[in-house]
Amino acid sequence: MGKLLIHNAQVFSVSKAGDRADIQPEQDVLINGQRIEAVQPSGSADPSHFDTVIDAKGMLVMPGLINCHAHVPMVLWRGLAEDASVERWFNDLMWPLENNLQPEDVYWGMLLGLIEQIESGVTAVADHYFHMTYAAQAVEKIGARALLGYAMFGSQGLSMVEETARFAADYNGAANGRIRTIMAPHAPYTCDDDFLRASATAAQKLGIGVHIHVSETTQQTVASLRKRGITPIQVLEQTGILELPTILAHVCGATPADIRLMEKYPVGIAHAVKTYLKLGQPTAPIVEFAAAGLPIGLASDGVVSNSTLNLWETLRLMALTQKERTGLGETMPISQALAIAAHGGSQVYGQPNDLGAVEPGYLADLILIDLSGTHHQPLHNIPMSLVYNLQPPDVRTVIIDGQVVMRDHQLLTIDKAEVFAQVRSRMEHLSYLEPSKRIQTYDN
Amino acid sequence: MGKLLIHNAQVFSVSKAGDRADIQPEQDVLINGQRIEAVQPSGSADPSHFDTVIDAKGMLVMPGLINCHAHVPMVLWRGLAEDASVERWFNDLMWPLENNLQPEDVYWGMLLGLIEQIESGVTAVADHYFHMTYAAQAVEKIGARALLGYAMFGSQGLSMVEETARFAADYNGAANGRIRTIMAPHAPYTCDDDFLRASATAAQKLGIGVHIHVSETTQQTVASLRKRGITPIQVLEQTGILELPTILAHVCGATPADIRLMEKYPVGIAHAVKTYLKLGQPTAPIVEFAAAGLPIGLASDGVVSNSTLNLWETLRLMALTQKERTGLGETMPISQALAIAAHGGSQVYGQPNDLGAVEPGYLADLILIDLSGTHHQPLHNIPMSLVYNLQPPDVRTVIIDGQVVMRDHQLLTIDKAEVFAQVRSRMEHLSYLEPSKRIQTYDN
Repeated sequence: MGKLLIHNAQVFSVSKAGDRADIQPEQDVLINGQRIEAVQPSGSADPSHFDTVIDAKGMLVMPGLINCHAHVPMVLWRGLAEDASVERWFNDLMWPLENNLQPEDVYWGMLLGLIEQIESGVTAVADHYFHMTYAAQAVEKIGARALLGYAMFGSQGLSMVEETARFAADYNGAANGRIRTIMAPHAPYTCDDDFLRASATAAQKLGIGVHIHVSETTQQTVASLRKRGITPIQVLEQTGILELPTILAHVCGATPADIRLMEKYPVGIAHAVKTYLKLGQPTAPIVEFAAAGLPIGLASDGVVSNSTLNLWETLRLMALTQKERTGLGETMPISQALAIAAHGGSQVYGQPNDLGAVEPGYLADLILIDLSGTHHQPLHNIPMSLVYNLQPPDVRTVIIDGQVVMRDHQLLTIDKAEVFAQVRSRMEHLSYLEPSKRIQTYDN
Repeated sequence: MGKLLIHNAQVFSVSKAGDRADIQPEQDVLINGQRIEAVQPSGSADPSHFDTVIDAKGMLVMPGLINCHAHVPMVLWRGLAEDASVERWFNDLMWPLENNLQPEDVYWGMLLGLIEQIESGVTAVADHYFHMTYAAQAVEKIGARALLGYAMFGSQGLSMVEETARFAADYNGAANGRIRTIMAPHAPYTCDDDFLRASATAAQKLGIGVHIHVSETTQQTVASLRKRGITPIQVLEQTGILELPTILAHVCGATPADIRLMEKYPVGIAHAVKTYLKLGQPTAPIVEFAAAGLPIGLASDGVVSNSTLNLWETLRLMALTQKERTGLGETMPISQALAIAAHGGSQVYGQPNDLGAVEPGYLADLILIDLSGTHHQPLHNIPMSLVYNLQPPDVRTVIIDGQVVMRDHQLLTIDKAEVFAQVRSRMEHLSYLEPSKRIQTYDN
């Protein structure tokens, strides 16, 4: 790590309110250890005082994107569950495929997905998956930042809450603080109330939060109302989950009353719009969430539904679909979309004062973007280009926790060819499909 | 040109019905002059018989994408009309900005946009714009394929029909056949019936088609019904336009009766879904168009609304939004989306037997795609990757009319730096904005 100077960059900023996005030209960003020490006009820092100097002429520096809800290792099955309904996706494809999963697959799948994330400028991820000690090793190895939740279903019994809580206790603060942990019950429709209550209690004891799927579709909300007279969000309130810092994944089926309820609690929403569209589902009421002051962060969900871990696509689709669903081109202006990407993400992720800004005191999770591509020309409006034009290969250099993990498209912490080869060698056993053998059954 | 061998490629094909997309490994594609001569197993052709040999190991060869409705030179104003309603977009932004347009701007803007297209694998474009002799020069220079329509408004008077027909007559078949022409009245809401009739008559005399905006929004359909009791599509029928091979841009406001009407005529639909979403408008009923057997092609519209000329994004958004609007993940399966990109595009463009397939006899408008990127791994499902994962820089090499115009990302027919510099020097005069000075007024 040591001292790092990013020289002569354009520095991006966006207001927390989302009303202003700015680009400050000719700036130096001074990094000392994990954190940004100063942002000042170019030329005022002496390069000889730094261990590493990156010439950023013509490039934009912005905070790395934060993926607020993913199942990164599912990248292993990319393309194996296409053109399907939610029911078929779970019961005939994904949950039978996951029956093949071996612990070591998680290590290599996590690495492959983290490479895809780093290459596209995603520096942190709230991951919700299985065999998470293997995922943690991958995060540590590649130098990424992650908030790891060991996924569990109610059918696994309450001992699973204890087991995953042990993981959470062991790994919180690991990798020099780059890893934090979170309790990860799957969803109200796969976990009964006692299981959810036990998860909340475990999280509270550990001083951590909860990461859970909820109200993924309107059908789930309707089914919950029919079965027990309350919405899935109300279930989370009654079981104590909402009192904790909680990442609510999706919430597409939120009712207006759910929104008023969520406002009272320290929760944030992870939004993975590409997945909703691919499954033929209406997107979430993001405009209403934002109006209620709920924190919103971008998410990829798993690659088996989302196809990629490219969060620029989520950002773009979020803005486009909110314009469409409100019937107003003025909805979700560029600066608001960028505020969600930066500050919304850091808030949902639980580190609002550490991540999401290029400012002194923040952690140095930064990406350098090359705006010289034809698709950005002429550069009348750089914030527009970030939301509507950016292609992942425009991300040239990535810094996480003060460490350069990719420089000029070259990964510095991992042997990409080895990861590709390992994943390829696992394709056959992973893609075996016997629909009757599934890890769970989906029934709202 | 001469003889070109693409050696050891994976060759993409998709059925016209859209029910099957296939990848054939280890193929050689033999090109003689403008056309594909043979597609045969690798190793059976002698490389010494060819002027140029491209090693395509690990790459996919597919037909170049066809942009069925664009205003390419509008790339000059990228980012200058954001977060706006349709009315404000036209009246306060786009049409005042176009008041600044000088003929030579069209040449440089067209070149910039054609570079963006080539770099992202778009080999042909149906362009609808002004000062089209300048656009034609740019197409000729860079080696692209284009169907050029000289845009006109009814307010310019019937002499404009004659003037643009002269352009159409002069340039049809230019650039060794790479340029075709088409009559281009702007829209039923900016051209009166006499003007539309005169446009149809001119097209018929020249043996060419018509390219027109129609029913861009449901509001336009409603306004037409209110003002004159018929839909914009019916206006085109009554004025003789539909009898010609016609590119109908957008048609988001088509009624079920419009669809039954369009079925009877040799028309095709150009679909530019990103633009609709950005302007907060519902997308077009593509599923219904497809069920009626109407040809559908991908389109970018102008960059001022669409932000980019990246047709992979249109392809992806088309599939995603049709799934969402029908509420079915099964809607618009991957093979159907790819059939629209390939065969739908060539049909709407008017060259269904020349373009859209890697087969003997077809014109050699081909792109080579590198699938080695992390975002494609592991390669369980290449057709899925084309629709849902592809990033434009995955396009490595582009061939148009048998000529290699980009090889390994290097443009061979144009000095990109000069084009960028010319466009930059025009940014100031082009971005001057005085809303009262506009080329037209939008009122449905």
